Amino acid sequence: MNIRLIRSACNIVTYAGKKFLIDPWLSDKAVWPAFPFTYNQDKQNPMVGLPVSIDEIIKVDAVIVTHMHPDHFDDVAMKVIPKDMKMFVQSEVDAATLKDGGFKDVEVVKESGINFGDITLYKTLGEHGRGDIVEDYMKKLGVSGTKEVMGVVLKNPNEKTFYIAGDTIWCEYVQDAISKYNPDVILLFAGYAQFVYGGPIIMGKYEVLEVFKAAPNAKIITTHLETVNHGLLTRKELKEYISEKGMTGNVLVPDDGETIAL
Amino acid sequence: MNIRLIRSACNIVTYAGKKFLIDPWLSDKAVWPAFPFTYNQDKQNPMVGLPVSIDEIIKVDAVIVTHMHPDHFDDVAMKVIPKDMKMFVQSEVDAATLKDGGFKDVEVVKESGINFGDITLYKTLGEHGRGDIVEDYMKKLGVSGTKEVMGVVLKNPNEKTFYIAGDTIWCEYVQDAISKYNPDVILLFAGYAQFVYGGPIIMGKYEVLEVFKAAPNAKIITTHLETVNHGLLTRKELKEYISEKGMTGNVLVPDDGETIAL
Repeated sequence: MNIRLIRSACNIVTYAGKKFLIDPWLSDKAVWPAFPFTYNQDKQNPMVGLPVSIDEIIKVDAVIVTHMHPDHFDDVAMKVIPKDMKMFVQSEVDAATLKDGGFKDVEVVKESGINFGDITLYKTLGEHGRGDIVEDYMKKLGVSGTKEVMGVVLKNPNEKTFYIAGDTIWCEYVQDAISKYNPDVILLFAGYAQFVYGGPIIMGKYEVLEVFKAAPNAKIITTHLETVNHGLLTRKELKEYISEKGMTGNVLVPDDGETIAL
Repeated sequence: MNIRLIRSACNIVTYAGKKFLIDPWLSDKAVWPAFPFTYNQDKQNPMVGLPVSIDEIIKVDAVIVTHMHPDHFDDVAMKVIPKDMKMFVQSEVDAATLKDGGFKDVEVVKESGINFGDITLYKTLGEHGRGDIVEDYMKKLGVSGTKEVMGVVLKNPNEKTFYIAGDTIWCEYVQDAISKYNPDVILLFAGYAQFVYGGPIIMGKYEVLEVFKAAPNAKIITTHLETVNHGLLTRKELKEYISEKGMTGNVLVPDDGETIAL
Protein backbone atom coordinates (compact mmCIF):
# COMPACT_ATOMS: atom_id res chain seq x y z
CA MET A 1 0.00 0.00 0.00
CA ASN A 2 0.99 3.59 -0.32
CA ILE A 3 -0.41 6.96 0.62
CA ARG A 4 0.01 10.06 -1.45
CA LEU A 5 -0.81 13.30 0.27
CA ILE A 6 -2.48 15.66 -2.15
CA ARG A 7 -3.19 18.62 0.15
CA SER A 8 -4.81 19.12 3.54
CA ALA A 9 -6.94 16.05 4.37
CA CYS A 10 -7.04 14.98 0.73
CA ASN A 11 -4.99 11.84 0.21
CA ILE A 12 -4.90 9.05 -2.35
CA VAL A 13 -4.45 5.63 -0.83
CA THR A 14 -3.48 2.67 -2.97
CA TYR A 15 -4.64 -0.43 -1.11
CA ALA A 16 -5.04 -4.02 -2.25
CA GLY A 17 -4.86 -2.93 -5.85
CA LYS A 18 -7.45 -0.19 -5.58
CA LYS A 19 -7.11 3.57 -5.37
CA PHE A 20 -9.15 5.51 -2.82
CA LEU A 21 -9.43 9.27 -2.88
CA ILE A 22 -9.99 10.59 0.63
CA ASP A 23 -11.69 13.90 1.39
CA PRO A 24 -11.40 15.75 -1.91
CA TRP A 25 -11.09 19.50 -1.39
CA LEU A 26 -10.26 20.61 -4.90
CA SER A 27 -10.70 24.40 -4.93
CA ASP A 28 -7.94 26.66 -6.22
CA LYS A 29 -5.60 28.34 -3.80
CA ALA A 30 -6.99 31.22 -1.73
CA VAL A 31 -10.45 31.37 -3.28
CA TRP A 32 -12.16 31.37 0.13
CA PRO A 33 -11.67 33.85 2.94
CA ALA A 34 -10.46 32.76 6.37
CA PHE A 35 -13.07 30.83 8.35
CA PRO A 36 -14.82 33.43 10.54
CA PHE A 37 -14.15 33.45 14.29
CA THR A 38 -10.82 31.68 13.87
CA TYR A 39 -7.16 32.54 14.10
CA ASN A 40 -5.14 34.04 11.22
CA GLN A 41 -7.86 36.07 9.54
CA ASP A 42 -5.27 37.44 7.12
CA LYS A 43 -4.96 34.06 5.38
CA GLN A 44 -7.17 32.71 2.61
CA ASN A 45 -8.19 29.11 2.03
CA PRO A 46 -6.91 26.80 0.75
CA MET A 47 -3.60 28.29 1.78
CA VAL A 48 -1.79 26.34 -0.95
CA GLY A 49 -2.64 25.08 -4.41
CA LEU A 50 -3.02 21.49 -5.57
CA PRO A 51 0.33 19.85 -6.32
CA VAL A 52 -1.08 17.82 -9.24
CA SER A 53 -3.89 18.21 -11.74
CA ILE A 54 -7.48 17.48 -10.80
CA ASP A 55 -7.60 14.98 -13.70
CA GLU A 56 -4.86 12.99 -12.01
CA ILE A 57 -6.47 13.25 -8.55
CA ILE A 58 -9.83 11.86 -9.62
CA LYS A 59 -8.41 8.81 -11.44
CA VAL A 60 -9.38 6.49 -8.60
CA ASP A 61 -11.64 3.53 -7.90
CA ALA A 62 -13.57 5.06 -5.03
CA VAL A 63 -13.88 8.18 -2.89
CA ILE A 64 -14.16 8.23 0.90
CA VAL A 65 -15.73 11.35 2.39
CA THR A 66 -15.21 11.29 6.15
CA HIS A 67 -17.68 14.15 6.57
CA MET A 68 -19.13 16.95 4.50
CA HIS A 69 -17.34 19.99 5.88
CA PRO A 70 -16.22 22.15 2.97
CA ASP A 71 -12.51 21.49 3.40
CA HIS A 72 -13.23 17.77 2.99
CA PHE A 73 -15.68 17.88 0.10
CA ASP A 74 -16.29 21.06 -1.85
CA ASP A 75 -18.31 22.26 -4.81
CA VAL A 76 -15.42 21.54 -7.17
CA ALA A 77 -15.36 17.91 -6.00
CA MET A 78 -19.12 17.78 -6.45
CA LYS A 79 -18.67 18.98 -10.03
CA VAL A 80 -15.60 17.16 -11.31
CA ILE A 81 -15.78 13.70 -9.77
CA PRO A 82 -17.50 11.35 -12.25
CA LYS A 83 -21.08 10.74 -11.21
CA ASP A 84 -20.67 6.97 -11.47
CA MET A 85 -17.78 6.96 -8.97
CA LYS A 86 -18.14 4.70 -5.94
CA MET A 87 -18.63 7.09 -3.02
CA PHE A 88 -18.30 6.05 0.65
CA VAL A 89 -19.91 8.29 3.29
CA GLN A 90 -20.65 8.24 7.00
CA SER A 91 -24.44 8.56 7.03
CA GLU A 92 -27.67 8.51 5.06
CA VAL A 93 -27.75 12.30 5.43
CA ASP A 94 -24.39 12.66 3.68
CA ALA A 95 -25.44 10.03 1.13
CA ALA A 96 -28.52 12.10 0.31
CA THR A 97 -26.36 15.18 -0.24
CA LEU A 98 -24.23 13.33 -2.77
CA LYS A 99 -27.23 11.74 -4.47
CA ASP A 100 -28.80 15.19 -4.76
CA GLY A 101 -25.58 16.20 -6.47
CA GLY A 102 -26.06 13.46 -9.04
CA PHE A 103 -23.89 10.67 -7.63
CA LYS A 104 -25.35 7.25 -8.42
CA ASP A 105 -23.25 4.80 -6.40
CA VAL A 106 -23.15 6.09 -2.83
CA GLU A 107 -22.72 3.71 0.09
CA VAL A 108 -22.78 4.34 3.83
CA VAL A 109 -19.84 2.75 5.67
CA LYS A 110 -20.98 0.73 8.69
CA GLU A 111 -19.32 -0.12 11.98
CA SER A 112 -20.09 -3.76 11.23
CA GLY A 113 -18.19 -3.48 7.95
CA ILE A 114 -19.04 -3.32 4.26
CA ASN A 115 -17.18 -4.92 1.38
CA PHE A 116 -15.65 -3.29 -1.66
CA GLY A 117 -14.29 -6.20 -3.65
CA ASP A 118 -11.94 -8.00 -1.27
CA ILE A 119 -11.48 -4.98 0.95
CA THR A 120 -13.62 -4.50 4.05
CA LEU A 121 -14.31 -0.98 5.27
CA TYR A 122 -15.35 -0.40 8.89
CA LYS A 123 -16.72 2.87 10.11
CA THR A 124 -15.08 4.26 13.27
CA LEU A 125 -16.23 7.20 15.33
CA GLY A 126 -14.58 10.45 16.28
CA GLU A 127 -15.15 13.65 18.18
CA HIS A 128 -14.70 16.80 16.09
CA GLY A 129 -13.68 18.97 19.04
CA ARG A 130 -14.99 18.56 22.54
CA GLY A 131 -18.72 18.78 23.12
CA ASP A 132 -20.75 21.01 20.84
CA ILE A 133 -18.00 23.37 19.76
CA VAL A 134 -18.49 22.69 16.05
CA GLU A 135 -22.27 22.98 16.27
CA ASP A 136 -22.01 26.17 18.30
CA TYR A 137 -19.72 27.52 15.62
CA MET A 138 -22.17 26.72 12.87
CA LYS A 139 -24.97 28.35 14.85
CA LYS A 140 -22.77 31.46 15.15
CA LEU A 141 -22.32 31.41 11.38
CA GLY A 142 -25.97 30.69 10.73
CA VAL A 143 -25.17 27.70 8.52
CA SER A 144 -26.54 24.21 8.69
CA GLY A 145 -24.31 21.22 9.30
CA THR A 146 -23.29 18.74 11.91
CA LYS A 147 -20.32 17.80 14.03
CA GLU A 148 -20.69 14.16 12.99
CA VAL A 149 -17.51 12.66 11.54
CA MET A 150 -16.27 9.20 10.81
CA GLY A 151 -13.01 7.40 10.53
CA VAL A 152 -12.57 4.30 8.40
CA VAL A 153 -10.56 1.11 8.82
CA LEU A 154 -9.57 -0.78 5.68
CA LYS A 155 -8.79 -4.48 5.93
CA ASN A 156 -7.65 -7.06 3.42
CA PRO A 157 -5.94 -10.39 4.08
CA ASN A 158 -2.87 -9.45 2.08
CA GLU A 159 -2.55 -5.88 3.25
CA LYS A 160 -1.67 -3.95 6.33
CA THR A 161 -4.62 -2.81 8.41
CA PHE A 162 -5.14 0.85 7.69
CA TYR A 163 -6.99 3.30 9.93
CA ILE A 164 -8.05 6.77 8.81
CA ALA A 165 -8.95 8.56 12.04
CA GLY A 166 -10.76 11.47 10.36
CA ASP A 167 -11.40 14.93 11.79
CA THR A 168 -11.23 14.01 15.46
CA ILE A 169 -9.48 15.01 18.63
CA TRP A 170 -7.82 12.34 20.76
CA CYS A 171 -10.73 10.65 22.50
CA GLU A 172 -12.09 7.30 23.58
CA TYR A 173 -13.35 6.58 20.07
CA VAL A 174 -9.82 6.73 18.72
CA GLN A 175 -8.46 4.64 21.59
CA ASP A 176 -11.21 2.09 20.96
CA ALA A 177 -10.48 1.91 17.25
CA ILE A 178 -6.78 1.34 17.91
CA SER A 179 -7.53 -1.36 20.48
CA LYS A 180 -10.08 -3.09 18.28
CA TYR A 181 -8.26 -3.05 14.94
CA ASN A 182 -4.61 -2.83 15.94
CA PRO A 183 -3.80 -0.87 12.77
CA ASP A 184 -0.40 -1.06 11.09
CA VAL A 185 -0.85 2.30 9.42
CA ILE A 186 -2.76 5.29 10.76
CA LEU A 187 -3.64 8.41 8.83
CA LEU A 188 -4.16 11.37 11.16
CA PHE A 189 -5.52 14.81 10.40
CA ALA A 190 -3.25 16.71 12.71
CA GLY A 191 -3.17 20.40 11.82
CA TYR A 192 -4.62 21.54 15.19
CA ALA A 193 -7.45 23.59 13.72
CA GLN A 194 -9.12 25.74 16.35
CA PHE A 195 -11.79 28.34 16.83
CA VAL A 196 -10.67 31.45 18.67
CA TYR A 197 -12.94 30.71 21.61
CA GLY A 198 -12.51 27.14 22.31
CA GLY A 199 -9.68 24.78 21.75
CA PRO A 200 -8.82 22.28 19.06
CA ILE A 201 -11.30 20.56 16.75
CA ILE A 202 -8.71 18.14 15.36
CA MET A 203 -5.47 16.69 16.68
CA GLY A 204 -2.20 18.55 17.11
CA LYS A 205 1.21 17.37 18.16
CA TYR A 206 0.24 16.47 21.73
CA GLU A 207 -2.49 14.20 20.40
CA VAL A 208 -0.14 12.66 17.85
CA LEU A 209 2.01 11.64 20.84
CA GLU A 210 -0.99 9.97 22.47
CA VAL A 211 -1.73 8.03 19.28
CA PHE A 212 1.92 7.00 19.08
CA LYS A 213 1.83 5.77 22.69
CA ALA A 214 -1.36 3.82 22.00
CA ALA A 215 -0.01 2.34 18.75
CA PRO A 216 3.77 2.24 19.15
CA ASN A 217 4.30 -0.17 16.27
CA ALA A 218 2.16 1.64 13.75
CA LYS A 219 3.31 3.99 11.04
CA ILE A 220 1.48 7.24 11.63
CA ILE A 221 1.04 9.59 8.69
CA THR A 222 0.10 13.15 9.63
CA THR A 223 -1.70 15.39 7.17
CA HIS A 224 -4.25 18.29 7.08
CA LEU A 225 -1.37 20.63 7.94
CA GLU A 226 -0.62 24.13 6.63
CA THR A 227 -3.69 24.43 4.42
CA VAL A 228 -6.48 26.00 6.49
CA ASN A 229 -6.13 29.37 8.18
CA HIS A 230 -7.19 28.07 11.59
CA GLY A 231 -4.72 25.18 11.64
CA LEU A 232 -2.15 26.28 14.21
CA LEU A 233 0.41 23.51 13.88
CA THR A 234 3.16 23.81 11.29
CA ARG A 235 5.10 20.90 9.84
CA LYS A 236 8.29 22.41 11.26
CA GLU A 237 6.89 22.44 14.79
CA LEU A 238 5.46 18.95 14.46
CA LYS A 239 8.78 17.59 13.16
CA GLU A 240 10.67 19.13 16.07
CA TYR A 241 8.23 17.55 18.51
CA ILE A 242 8.53 14.17 16.77
CA SER A 243 12.27 14.35 17.19
CA GLU A 244 12.07 15.54 20.80
CA LYS A 245 9.65 12.79 21.81
CA GLY A 246 11.46 9.95 20.07
CA MET A 247 8.81 9.35 17.42
CA THR A 248 11.13 9.65 14.43
CA GLY A 249 10.52 6.78 12.00
CA ASN A 250 7.09 6.12 13.45
CA VAL A 251 5.42 9.43 12.71
CA LEU A 252 5.81 10.78 9.19
CA VAL A 253 4.99 14.25 7.91
CA PRO A 254 4.67 14.16 4.12
CA ASP A 255 4.84 17.23 1.91
CA ASP A 256 1.99 18.00 -0.43
CA GLY A 257 2.22 15.65 -3.39
CA GLU A 258 4.59 13.24 -1.63
CA THR A 259 3.96 9.49 -1.74
CA ILE A 260 4.80 7.28 1.22
CA ALA A 261 5.26 3.57 0.50
CA LEU A 262 4.23 1.35 3.40
CA MET B 1 6.39 47.58 40.49
CA ASN B 2 7.94 44.22 40.11
CA ILE B 3 6.82 40.63 39.81
CA ARG B 4 8.67 37.72 41.31
CA LEU B 5 7.64 34.32 40.04
CA ILE B 6 7.74 31.83 42.87
CA ARG B 7 6.49 28.72 41.06
CA SER B 8 3.53 27.83 38.85
CA ALA B 9 0.81 30.49 39.27
CA CYS B 10 2.32 31.65 42.56
CA ASN B 11 3.83 35.11 42.17
CA ILE B 12 4.70 37.96 44.50
CA VAL B 13 3.81 41.35 43.08
CA THR B 14 5.22 44.51 44.62
CA TYR B 15 2.85 47.32 43.70
CA ALA B 16 2.48 50.86 45.05
CA GLY B 17 4.53 49.94 48.09
CA LYS B 18 2.59 46.79 48.94
CA LYS B 19 3.38 43.15 48.43
CA PHE B 20 0.70 40.81 47.08
CA LEU B 21 1.09 37.06 47.11
CA ILE B 22 -0.88 35.54 44.25
CA ASP B 23 -2.18 31.97 44.25
CA PRO B 24 -0.06 30.31 46.94
CA TRP B 25 0.56 26.65 46.16
CA LEU B 26 3.13 25.80 48.78
CA SER B 27 3.36 22.01 48.86
CA ASP B 28 6.69 20.27 48.59
CA LYS B 29 7.83 18.89 45.26
CA ALA B 30 6.09 15.73 44.00
CA VAL B 31 3.87 15.09 47.01
CA TRP B 32 0.76 14.70 44.85
CA PRO B 33 0.22 12.21 42.04
CA ALA B 34 -0.56 13.34 38.51
CA PHE B 35 -4.05 14.76 38.09
CA PRO B 36 -6.21 11.85 36.89
CA PHE B 37 -7.42 11.77 33.29
CA THR B 38 -4.64 14.08 32.14
CA TYR B 39 -1.45 13.79 30.16
CA ASN B 40 1.91 12.75 31.64
CA GLN B 41 0.70 10.37 34.32
CA ASP B 42 4.32 9.53 35.16
CA LYS B 43 4.86 12.98 36.66
CA GLN B 44 4.08 14.08 40.22
CA ASN B 45 2.91 17.49 41.38
CA PRO B 46 4.26 20.02 41.98
CA MET B 47 6.87 19.04 39.42
CA VAL B 48 9.44 21.36 41.02
CA GLY B 49 10.17 22.59 44.52
CA LEU B 50 9.83 26.11 45.86
CA PRO B 51 12.83 28.30 44.98
CA VAL B 52 12.70 30.18 48.30
CA SER B 53 11.53 29.44 51.82
CA ILE B 54 7.88 29.56 52.76
CA ASP B 55 8.76 32.12 55.44
CA GLU B 56 9.98 34.46 52.76
CA ILE B 57 7.00 33.81 50.50
CA ILE B 58 4.39 34.69 53.09
CA LYS B 59 6.00 38.00 54.15
CA VAL B 60 3.43 40.03 52.22
CA ASP B 61 0.68 42.56 52.82
CA ALA B 62 -2.12 40.62 51.18
CA VAL B 63 -2.91 37.42 49.31
CA ILE B 64 -4.97 37.19 46.13
CA VAL B 65 -6.54 33.79 45.43
CA THR B 66 -7.92 33.79 41.89
CA HIS B 67 -9.80 30.55 42.59
CA MET B 68 -9.62 27.65 44.99
CA HIS B 69 -8.24 24.88 42.78
CA PRO B 70 -5.54 23.04 44.71
CA ASP B 71 -2.65 24.26 42.56
CA HIS B 72 -3.67 27.84 43.43
CA PHE B 73 -4.37 27.45 47.13
CA ASP B 74 -3.47 24.29 48.99
CA ASP B 75 -3.61 22.91 52.53
CA VAL B 76 -0.09 24.17 53.22
CA ALA B 77 -1.17 27.71 52.34
CA MET B 78 -4.22 27.27 54.53
CA LYS B 79 -1.92 26.29 57.40
CA VAL B 80 1.06 28.61 57.11
CA ILE B 81 -0.38 31.95 56.00
CA PRO B 82 -1.05 34.07 59.10
CA LYS B 83 -4.72 34.09 59.95
CA ASP B 84 -4.85 37.88 60.13
CA MET B 85 -3.56 38.24 56.57
CA LYS B 86 -5.68 40.29 54.19
CA MET B 87 -7.12 37.74 51.74
CA PHE B 88 -8.77 38.68 48.42
CA VAL B 89 -11.06 36.11 46.79
CA GLN B 90 -13.50 35.89 43.89
CA SER B 91 -16.73 35.00 45.68
CA GLU B 92 -18.59 34.59 48.93
CA VAL B 93 -18.22 30.84 48.50
CA ASP B 94 -14.44 31.07 48.41
CA ALA B 95 -14.53 33.60 51.27
CA ALA B 96 -16.47 31.10 53.37
CA THR B 97 -13.85 28.43 52.68
CA LEU B 98 -11.08 30.68 53.96
CA LYS B 99 -13.13 31.83 56.94
CA ASP B 100 -13.80 28.19 57.80
CA GLY B 101 -10.03 27.77 57.74
CA GLY B 102 -9.65 30.53 60.32
CA PHE B 103 -8.88 33.56 58.17
CA LYS B 104 -10.32 36.71 59.68
CA ASP B 105 -9.85 39.38 57.02
CA VAL B 106 -11.27 38.00 53.79
CA GLU B 107 -12.68 40.29 51.14
CA VAL B 108 -14.42 39.54 47.86
CA VAL B 109 -13.03 41.49 44.90
CA LYS B 110 -15.78 43.19 42.90
CA GLU B 111 -16.06 44.17 39.25
CA SER B 112 -16.95 47.68 40.44
CA GLY B 113 -13.68 47.81 42.38
CA ILE B 114 -12.62 47.67 46.03
CA ASN B 115 -9.90 49.66 47.72
CA PHE B 116 -6.85 48.41 49.57
CA GLY B 117 -5.17 51.57 50.80
CA ASP B 118 -4.58 53.64 47.68
CA ILE B 119 -4.77 50.63 45.37
CA THR B 120 -8.03 49.69 43.66
CA LEU B 121 -8.64 46.07 42.77
CA TYR B 122 -11.18 45.21 40.08
CA LYS B 123 -12.44 41.70 39.49
CA THR B 124 -12.34 40.48 35.89
CA LEU B 125 -13.86 37.31 34.50
CA GLY B 126 -12.36 34.32 32.78
CA GLU B 127 -13.26 31.01 31.22
CA HIS B 128 -11.38 28.05 32.69
CA GLY B 129 -11.57 25.96 29.55
CA ARG B 130 -14.43 26.03 27.14
CA GLY B 131 -17.91 25.19 28.36
CA ASP B 132 -18.23 22.76 31.24
CA ILE B 133 -14.94 20.90 30.76
CA VAL B 134 -13.70 21.63 34.29
CA GLU B 135 -17.02 20.75 35.89
CA ASP B 136 -17.28 17.56 33.85
CA TYR B 137 -13.79 16.69 35.04
CA MET B 138 -14.72 17.19 38.68
CA LYS B 139 -17.82 15.06 38.21
CA LYS B 140 -15.59 12.33 36.76
CA LEU B 141 -13.40 12.59 39.85
CA GLY B 142 -16.36 12.75 42.20
CA VAL B 143 -15.08 15.91 43.86
CA SER B 144 -16.88 19.15 44.52
CA GLY B 145 -15.73 22.40 43.06
CA THR B 146 -16.48 24.92 40.39
CA LYS B 147 -15.08 26.24 37.15
CA GLU B 148 -15.47 29.83 38.41
CA VAL B 149 -12.28 31.86 38.21
CA MET B 150 -11.41 35.50 38.41
CA GLY B 151 -8.73 37.79 37.17
CA VAL B 152 -7.82 41.01 38.95
CA VAL B 153 -6.79 44.46 37.75
CA LEU B 154 -4.72 46.61 40.11
CA LYS B 155 -4.77 50.38 39.69
CA ASN B 156 -2.98 53.20 41.46
CA PRO B 157 -2.36 56.75 40.20
CA ASN B 158 1.41 56.38 40.47
CA GLU B 159 1.70 52.86 39.13
CA LYS B 160 1.28 50.97 35.91
CA THR B 161 -2.07 49.31 35.46
CA PHE B 162 -1.62 45.63 36.16
CA TYR B 163 -3.90 42.83 34.98
CA ILE B 164 -3.72 39.28 36.31
CA ALA B 165 -5.79 37.26 33.84
CA GLY B 166 -6.06 34.15 36.04
CA ASP B 167 -6.76 30.58 34.95
CA THR B 168 -8.52 31.37 31.70
CA ILE B 169 -8.38 30.55 28.04
CA TRP B 170 -8.38 33.36 25.49
CA CYS B 171 -11.99 34.51 25.44
CA GLU B 172 -14.22 37.55 25.29
CA TYR B 173 -13.73 38.20 29.00
CA VAL B 174 -10.01 38.67 28.48
CA GLN B 175 -10.55 40.83 25.41
CA ASP B 176 -13.03 42.94 27.37
CA ALA B 177 -10.63 43.37 30.30
CA ILE B 178 -7.85 44.49 27.97
CA SER B 179 -10.17 46.94 26.19
CA LYS B 180 -11.59 48.32 29.41
CA TYR B 181 -8.42 48.71 31.48
CA ASN B 182 -5.70 49.04 28.82
CA PRO B 183 -3.17 47.36 31.14
CA ASP B 184 0.54 48.15 31.00
CA VAL B 185 1.49 44.82 32.52
CA ILE B 186 -0.33 41.51 32.12
CA LEU B 187 0.32 38.37 34.11
CA LEU B 188 -0.77 35.28 32.18
CA PHE B 189 -1.04 31.70 33.36
CA ALA B 190 0.11 30.09 30.15
CA GLY B 191 1.17 26.49 30.75
CA TYR B 192 -1.49 25.02 28.45
CA ALA B 193 -2.91 22.60 31.00
CA GLN B 194 -5.29 20.10 29.40
CA PHE B 195 -7.41 17.11 30.16
CA VAL B 196 -6.85 14.15 27.88
CA TYR B 197 -10.33 14.41 26.42
CA GLY B 198 -10.85 17.96 25.73
CA GLY B 199 -8.52 20.76 24.98
CA PRO B 200 -6.88 23.46 27.03
CA ILE B 201 -8.16 24.86 30.32
CA ILE B 202 -5.65 27.71 30.41
CA MET B 203 -3.72 29.60 27.76
CA GLY B 204 -0.81 28.27 25.75
CA LYS B 205 1.43 29.94 23.23
CA TYR B 206 -1.24 30.52 20.61
CA GLU B 207 -3.32 32.38 23.15
CA VAL B 208 -0.31 34.38 24.33
CA LEU B 209 -0.05 35.61 20.74
CA GLU B 210 -3.70 36.72 20.82
CA VAL B 211 -3.11 38.65 24.05
CA PHE B 212 -0.03 40.24 22.51
CA LYS B 213 -2.03 41.30 19.45
CA ALA B 214 -4.76 42.75 21.67
CA ALA B 215 -2.26 44.57 23.93
CA PRO B 216 0.80 45.24 21.76
CA ASN B 217 2.25 47.82 24.14
CA ALA B 218 1.90 45.78 27.32
CA LYS B 219 4.56 43.75 29.04
CA ILE B 220 3.22 40.23 29.24
CA ILE B 221 4.61 37.95 31.94
CA THR B 222 3.92 34.26 31.39
CA THR B 223 3.89 31.86 34.35
CA HIS B 224 2.19 28.61 35.49
CA LEU B 225 4.63 26.71 33.27
CA GLU B 226 6.47 23.43 33.91
CA THR B 227 4.91 22.72 37.31
CA VAL B 228 1.76 20.65 36.76
CA ASN B 229 1.78 17.31 34.97
CA HIS B 230 -0.98 18.30 32.56
CA GLY B 231 0.67 21.54 31.45
CA LEU B 232 1.84 20.78 27.93
CA LEU B 233 3.77 23.91 27.09
CA THR B 234 7.44 24.17 28.02
CA ARG B 235 9.35 27.41 28.50
CA LYS B 236 11.65 26.37 25.65
CA GLU B 237 8.76 25.98 23.25
CA LEU B 238 7.14 29.21 24.37
CA LYS B 239 10.40 31.13 23.98
CA GLU B 240 10.88 29.79 20.45
CA TYR B 241 7.36 30.87 19.56
CA ILE B 242 7.91 34.32 21.08
CA SER B 243 10.98 34.72 18.90
CA GLU B 244 9.25 33.35 15.80
CA LYS B 245 6.25 35.66 16.17
CA GLY B 246 8.21 38.81 16.97
CA MET B 247 7.08 39.09 20.58
CA THR B 248 10.58 39.28 22.07
CA GLY B 249 10.77 42.09 24.60
CA ASN B 250 6.99 42.16 25.01
CA VAL B 251 6.43 38.66 26.33
CA LEU B 252 8.67 37.52 29.16
CA VAL B 253 9.14 34.02 30.53
CA PRO B 254 10.66 34.21 34.02
CA ASP B 255 12.34 31.28 35.72
CA ASP B 256 11.14 30.16 39.12
CA GLY B 257 12.39 32.64 41.70
CA GLU B 258 13.20 35.32 39.13
CA THR B 259 12.12 38.93 39.68
CA ILE B 260 11.07 41.12 36.78
CA ALA B 261 11.23 44.87 37.36
CA LEU B 262 8.61 46.80 35.42
